[in-house]
Amino acid sequence: MNEYQAMTSETIGDYVKKVGVFPSDHQLAAKEVGDGNLNLVFRISDLTDHKTVIVKQALPYLKVAGEGWKLTIDRNRIEAETMQLQNKLCSGSVPRVYHHSDDYALTIMEDLGEMETLRNGLMSMKKYPKFPGQIGRFFARNLFLSSDMGMGPMEKKKIVSRFISPELCDITEKLVLNDPYADSASNNVNPYIKTAVEQVWGNQQVRLETAKLKSIFMTKAEALLHGDVHTGSIFIDENKCVIFDAEFAFYGPYGYDIGLLLANFILNYVSWEGRADKNLSDIKSYREYLLKSIEEIWCAFSENFHELWQHESKDIITQIPGYEESYVQELLHETIGFSACEVMRRIIGMAHVPDLDAIEDLQARAKAQRLGLKIGQAILLQRNNLNSIQEFTDLIKQSAK
Amino acid sequence: MNEYQAMTSETIGDYVKKVGVFPSDHQLAAKEVGDGNLNLVFRISDLTDHKTVIVKQALPYLKVAGEGWKLTIDRNRIEAETMQLQNKLCSGSVPRVYHHSDDYALTIMEDLGEMETLRNGLMSMKKYPKFPGQIGRFFARNLFLSSDMGMGPMEKKKIVSRFISPELCDITEKLVLNDPYADSASNNVNPYIKTAVEQVWGNQQVRLETAKLKSIFMTKAEALLHGDVHTGSIFIDENKCVIFDAEFAFYGPYGYDIGLLLANFILNYVSWEGRADKNLSDIKSYREYLLKSIEEIWCAFSENFHELWQHESKDIITQIPGYEESYVQELLHETIGFSACEVMRRIIGMAHVPDLDAIEDLQARAKAQRLGLKIGQAILLQRNNLNSIQEFTDLIKQSAK
Repeated sequence: MNEYQAMTSETIGDYVKKVGVFPSDHQLAAKEVGDGNLNLVFRISDLTDHKTVIVKQALPYLKVAGEGWKLTIDRNRIEAETMQLQNKLCSGSVPRVYHHSDDYALTIMEDLGEMETLRNGLMSMKKYPKFPGQIGRFFARNLFLSSDMGMGPMEKKKIVSRFISPELCDITEKLVLNDPYADSASNNVNPYIKTAVEQVWGNQQVRLETAKLKSIFMTKAEALLHGDVHTGSIFIDENKCVIFDAEFAFYGPYGYDIGLLLANFILNYVSWEGRADKNLSDIKSYREYLLKSIEEIWCAFSENFHELWQHESKDIITQIPGYEESYVQELLHETIGFSACEVMRRIIGMAHVPDLDAIEDLQARAKAQRLGLKIGQAILLQRNNLNSIQEFTDLIKQSAK
Repeated sequence: MNEYQAMTSETIGDYVKKVGVFPSDHQLAAKEVGDGNLNLVFRISDLTDHKTVIVKQALPYLKVAGEGWKLTIDRNRIEAETMQLQNKLCSGSVPRVYHHSDDYALTIMEDLGEMETLRNGLMSMKKYPKFPGQIGRFFARNLFLSSDMGMGPMEKKKIVSRFISPELCDITEKLVLNDPYADSASNNVNPYIKTAVEQVWGNQQVRLETAKLKSIFMTKAEALLHGDVHTGSIFIDENKCVIFDAEFAFYGPYGYDIGLLLANFILNYVSWEGRADKNLSDIKSYREYLLKSIEEIWCAFSENFHELWQHESKDIITQIPGYEESYVQELLHETIGFSACEVMRRIIGMAHVPDLDAIEDLQARAKAQRLGLKIGQAILLQRNNLNSIQEFTDLIKQSAK
């Protein structure tokens, strides 16, 4: 066993050669490219044959907090094993893993080069017609094939323990499902939305519904989640999308993954409320694109899920008439519920999204954020009455009027 | 590491001395007292000072099936660790563990002597006025203190993996939550109830509701269940009750444990329908006692649970107004659902209960079994409309009219 040490752009090249990812006689260049505060990220270039890889190493503490706030480096193993499983379940949907070391909490993986994040694309009004089909398929395959139904109840239970991640779940439970709905120290509130936020905090129904969702998050080991599928965790171009940064992975309720992504479309949707740099007809049209994408994502998911349910089941529970409809409806309700939490926490909580924070004028940003809170509360409280994805997007539209 | 070998009444005495449970110079007597088919059970008596202990050793195969049907011996570790935790959470409620060996899949535990099982007591119309308070407390403490709320979300997640038990859960999923609701090979049906059973199998709503419950069983890691709390797993006398045989323990939905026990009260309740050896007024009065016990068990549970919720919480989710009521109501619905499954599977499925099978006249037994199926279906389908334990016992009474 080797003792953990943080890599530097000086030491990482030798490591990559030593483990055989690049030949030992090639000349390498290493550059730290990370912008997170939890991990070191390096791009390693083989100057001899112009190949590149990415190295991600977990830090045992939060960078922003110095070395005081400890965080398990085992998350790097969980991320690597998640990518390996996701690549098996849905080939090419995540970066390929070339090497992983438990000792160094380090993974060498495919470099997606200069692909853009979906978040940046949406912020500049780009459209991705193939994305709903791609991500719908990713969601369906990951949910079904890592669940009791697709993996078989015995096999699934055996692997659940490899993905138990108390510390990372604790972060989500606090920052997404708890703190934003009360006047907590971790919150980060634009002073211009103070009244609207206090209304959220004073709404007992909101607190109760978020408690129910937190309980589902803590107890429902349905499928292997990515755990943080926001639009900044997706590389995209015209032809493909690749989902990365799976360090929050664990066995949880799959509505959390789908809901998080839909929420980030909603956050982009509301951001245009505060953008003065685009004309109204472009905004109207782009918002229609965003809601249509939400519908198409769900439909692509449902269709792929139905196929798997019909043909890939390892549990006879899927043969019971009416159970698929009941399952998918409960999933939709949970998806909407978690999506509501993500919308609200990105406005009230500690970690915001660039879609909104890029609006420098705080009063303009407040306008968009208030709309987000309105939509968030509406979909949270009405989720169990929404029985199709259209009823969901209709409610978003109505709230935006 | 020692190699596993099955103990005999000749070898077990030396083992017990070797691990220091009895002094090496004492004379011991060992007797096999097991009647199960999964384990060897010995009573060891220290003839020098008249102390006794029980040794339970897991067999790597089902005895009835010869050495063909393999079953993990790790269940013995799970049972020992469950007893140790349960004794910590609710002192004296389960046999004390003196020694456990992973290698031999063997546990030496407290001998409860000649205590009677609750099942035998109920079959001979005995009453246990203290039992509802005792078991209600056991349920409340085990549920709350092993959940995210009572253990803290971090600690709870860390121990979940010690209690993952795919093979034992598989048995429950098949024999309790799947096979009885269709014409499966494992079923064991009294020919005189064929029509009533075919009606169950033809009821699509029954299959759908049992599918939902099976899904909850497979995914909801709420608390550490005993996993098999029927009335034959409880030793009882006037003053105390001790719950044993926890080898089916795992992190699951707690309504399964409570529901199983209530179901075994219902199975005893319906058994009197087929008993000609007691007079009607005694039967009426005993049935009232049984339903009153069900109500008192739930009330004792709720009261203890409320105290823990108020004073022992490690998760701020318990401070959210309305959440306790919502939590307990969902638990009641799941409890009733699982209790319905246990009632039906003990009539249609492979493993029956002595309460019913002791009725030797198959036509008389059929009368009781038909009532069981009627009650089972009624409570299964109406469970989400039953909002108090009285509404539950009322529905049982109405179905019995």
